Amino acid sequence: MAAIDLNCDLGEGFGRWALGDDEALLDVVTSANVACGFHAGDPTTLARVCAGAVERGVSIGAQVGYRDLPGFGRRFIDIGYDDLRADVIYQIGALQGLSRAGGGRVDYVKPHGALYHATTTHERQAAAVVDAVRAVDPDLAVLGWPGSLLLQAAASAGLRCVTEGFADRRYGDDGRLVDRSRPDALLTDPAEVTAQALSLVGSVDSLCLHGDTDGAAALVLAVRAALTGAGHTLQPFCDTGSGR
Amino acid sequence: MAAIDLNCDLGEGFGRWALGDDEALLDVVTSANVACGFHAGDPTTLARVCAGAVERGVSIGAQVGYRDLPGFGRRFIDIGYDDLRADVIYQIGALQGLSRAGGGRVDYVKPHGALYHATTTHERQAAAVVDAVRAVDPDLAVLGWPGSLLLQAAASAGLRCVTEGFADRRYGDDGRLVDRSRPDALLTDPAEVTAQALSLVGSVDSLCLHGDTDGAAALVLAVRAALTGAGHTLQPFCDTGSGR
Amino acid sequence: MAAIDLNCDLGEGFGRWALGDDEALLDVVTSANVACGFHAGDPTTLARVCAGAVERGVSIGAQVGYRDLPGFGRRFIDIGYDDLRADVIYQIGALQGLSRAGGGRVDYVKPHGALYHATTTHERQAAAVVDAVRAVDPDLAVLGWPGSLLLQAAASAGLRCVTEGFADRRYGDDGRLVDRSRPDALLTDPAEVTAQALSLVGSVDSLCLHGDTDGAAALVLAVRAALTGAGHTLQPFCDTGSGR
Amino acid sequence: MAAIDLNCDLGEGFGRWALGDDEALLDVVTSANVACGFHAGDPTTLARVCAGAVERGVSIGAQVGYRDLPGFGRRFIDIGYDDLRADVIYQIGALQGLSRAGGGRVDYVKPHGALYHATTTHERQAAAVVDAVRAVDPDLAVLGWPGSLLLQAAASAGLRCVTEGFADRRYGDDGRLVDRSRPDALLTDPAEVTAQALSLVGSVDSLCLHGDTDGAAALVLAVRAALTGAGHTLQPFCDTGSGR
Repeated sequence: MAAIDLNCDLGEGFGRWALGDDEALLDVVTSANVACGFHAGDPTTLARVCAGAVERGVSIGAQVGYRDLPGFGRRFIDIGYDDLRADVIYQIGALQGLSRAGGGRVDYVKPHGALYHATTTHERQAAAVVDAVRAVDPDLAVLGWPGSLLLQAAASAGLRCVTEGFADRRYGDDGRLVDRSRPDALLTDPAEVTAQALSLVGSVDSLCLHGDTDGAAALVLAVRAALTGAGHTLQPFCDTGSGR
Repeated sequence: MAAIDLNCDLGEGFGRWALGDDEALLDVVTSANVACGFHAGDPTTLARVCAGAVERGVSIGAQVGYRDLPGFGRRFIDIGYDDLRADVIYQIGALQGLSRAGGGRVDYVKPHGALYHATTTHERQAAAVVDAVRAVDPDLAVLGWPGSLLLQAAASAGLRCVTEGFADRRYGDDGRLVDRSRPDALLTDPAEVTAQALSLVGSVDSLCLHGDTDGAAALVLAVRAALTGAGHTLQPFCDTGSGR
Repeated sequence: MAAIDLNCDLGEGFGRWALGDDEALLDVVTSANVACGFHAGDPTTLARVCAGAVERGVSIGAQVGYRDLPGFGRRFIDIGYDDLRADVIYQIGALQGLSRAGGGRVDYVKPHGALYHATTTHERQAAAVVDAVRAVDPDLAVLGWPGSLLLQAAASAGLRCVTEGFADRRYGDDGRLVDRSRPDALLTDPAEVTAQALSLVGSVDSLCLHGDTDGAAALVLAVRAALTGAGHTLQPFCDTGSGR
Repeated sequence: MAAIDLNCDLGEGFGRWALGDDEALLDVVTSANVACGFHAGDPTTLARVCAGAVERGVSIGAQVGYRDLPGFGRRFIDIGYDDLRADVIYQIGALQGLSRAGGGRVDYVKPHGALYHATTTHERQAAAVVDAVRAVDPDLAVLGWPGSLLLQAAASAGLRCVTEGFADRRYGDDGRLVDRSRPDALLTDPAEVTAQALSLVGSVDSLCLHGDTDGAAALVLAVRAALTGAGHTLQPFCDTGSGR
């Protein structure tokens, strides 16, 4: 029996373009990785998601990404240390402003897409993200891949580290995620997703599910039911109840 | 003899493109209207300007603008209330993040360019800016045109209002600024600028000078000398010395 | 019995964000108003839409808009003549390149969203659009609102003018469209849309239907069936069969 | 005695931000690598540069780049084949539109910045650029680094290939350019630049000089004088005098 967190990417629409069902997902996750406007997320959408998270006691994370709306932050960009550090500070600050305006606060930071992948192994970029977090608010936690350079650097910097597993992505025999370009990269069978979620509990602090697929909220709900049915407790890894 | 503030627009470069001499201007102003990335200002430049302002005890203002890099925020955009409010919160939050990372804080908000002009008379847009400021941090002051709808709305909202006059823009007989498209809109003769600066002291809280012209820092220095020579004290309208 | 054209907005996704069912709509329209990247439309999407239009003999129009992805081109921007003219040339040229690469060509130009509305009455902006079209290719037709300043200016410039009516937008008693913000602005009942389409034949050269609503293709198909049932012939107003 | 071309990057300002002295450079180069809006170059600036090139008989090249205004196209982006191909077509088409509106045409294509470097060795990206050029207009020449994958692929595709050397960049012993991050990467001494220019004649079709440094036009003029003094003829590698 363990306490476990469920995190999803939210706020990934942009203006006229919707993506995912933020309202439905806010009802079922415990932590929301909210886009910060660089890979997705117009300020109006982000403000609404932050306010919705506060209403429901969902923890808010800043999902920082490369400045690449056309590529949705999924293309590696060979950006230098200074620029990436400043870009990350800017994004965190922007979401902190929107969270404050919605009566809440940002609890943690998680890189998005290609930046997530890069910072598992790219020293300069991992350092830039960690230094940005520390500079803007050393009380922010960092959510990431177990054993990644990002979390190693975050730990060295004295930041709180939170590990996650992916309930709906296939793991290869090497323990890494199967590449997104492969047809079997995503698990879609609810039974398979649920089983993988249960198997991950205990080895990670949080379970990530994707929010941009059809029926995402229903899938998260099924995972929740399985987890609570197995006696686990769903709760954010960050305490959202108290002021900082 | 009065205390008077000198404000200038800073941080208006973007990536490869420099604009104005931020370092020289930071040495001579008391308040820096720092761009927030929507009309100008890449995060790296903004981080450097914020850090430089903190080092010198210069007060930092968030110069919020329309999201319009190609137009430098100088074209009116008929943006709705929700979008403008969220855009302004986003920009203020981003600059707050960069200021915090530089060891300081944002003290005030001033709209830029076409948004500045619009909010003197445009009820919806003035309300959106004021509501954004109040939502993100009601301790922020609002710097603007005396008698503008913006300052009226800010006062009604309980925000601190700070008025400014323009030392290097020509005033028409109606007390308004001569339109920028007119060839005589800008004062460039140092004697004329200095005289106008001296005449404005007492009627406004701050004097604005433009930072994007050649020799801008020298002109500000001349104005400073004239003001102190006349017995006035140069100081930020916001106390930058204490934590908030 | 008349020949009539059916036009729809296509290519309005952007990167990760889809909008409308371009493939289904290409099967049922005779003219495609293809976005040009300023209000919507990433180059990959636009290339695919252009190629699909060529395959089906659908006429390609450049739907030029304000440079405003977050606002989807639906917010008036007070842009000057030179900038708007150059922006429109740039957009037309870009779509011409993509059309050529897909084996076709651009046949006409239609302004999008707030630019469409502005150019019905805004002299400077209407002139900028018309002068852009004439400068880049005087064989391009201009599709617009009957009686608009845009079409008047286009006619004066010797450009071919094509008028359109809206099958699924409500007309007020003044003959203008009911404002989009009103709940009854859009007609959604197929019978009503079809009836309005039939009533417009003869008074305009083309019928516009919206492509970004659910079931848009089915609605267009219903309109097609009604039109052909009444003996009208569906065909593009521009001959797409011959090289220029 | 040989015919040699001088090329420079032009049109690299963006809106309020100027960069380089386009007018002065147009007077001294024979080929202008004109930015296309993705790494730099607002349409108004590009329209002016294209018109200026036509007036002076300067050949116009489309300098295509990554979509990265904040990074000025100098950061590698791991963009896929389809997206890069479409991005390049879009940029070429846009500049073709602006050139046509200015009474001229685009003669060649040259990648900019990080895309230039990537396509010397990156197979997928080199192929995407070449396929884009061929798709939009197979009469366009490709200007690039001798021996690069880009030129190899262009030759295989039947495109005309034009090689260039850099008069003001230092070559290492391996025949490659010294990395831009090294302090001695740029040659600034006019005598050294001129000598290197003279030594490159015969081995390349065109000499590249940088336009974004102070005194760039004077440097190009000095190189011109040295080349003509040595009996060489300055002329564009593409014939700009005839219609296509």
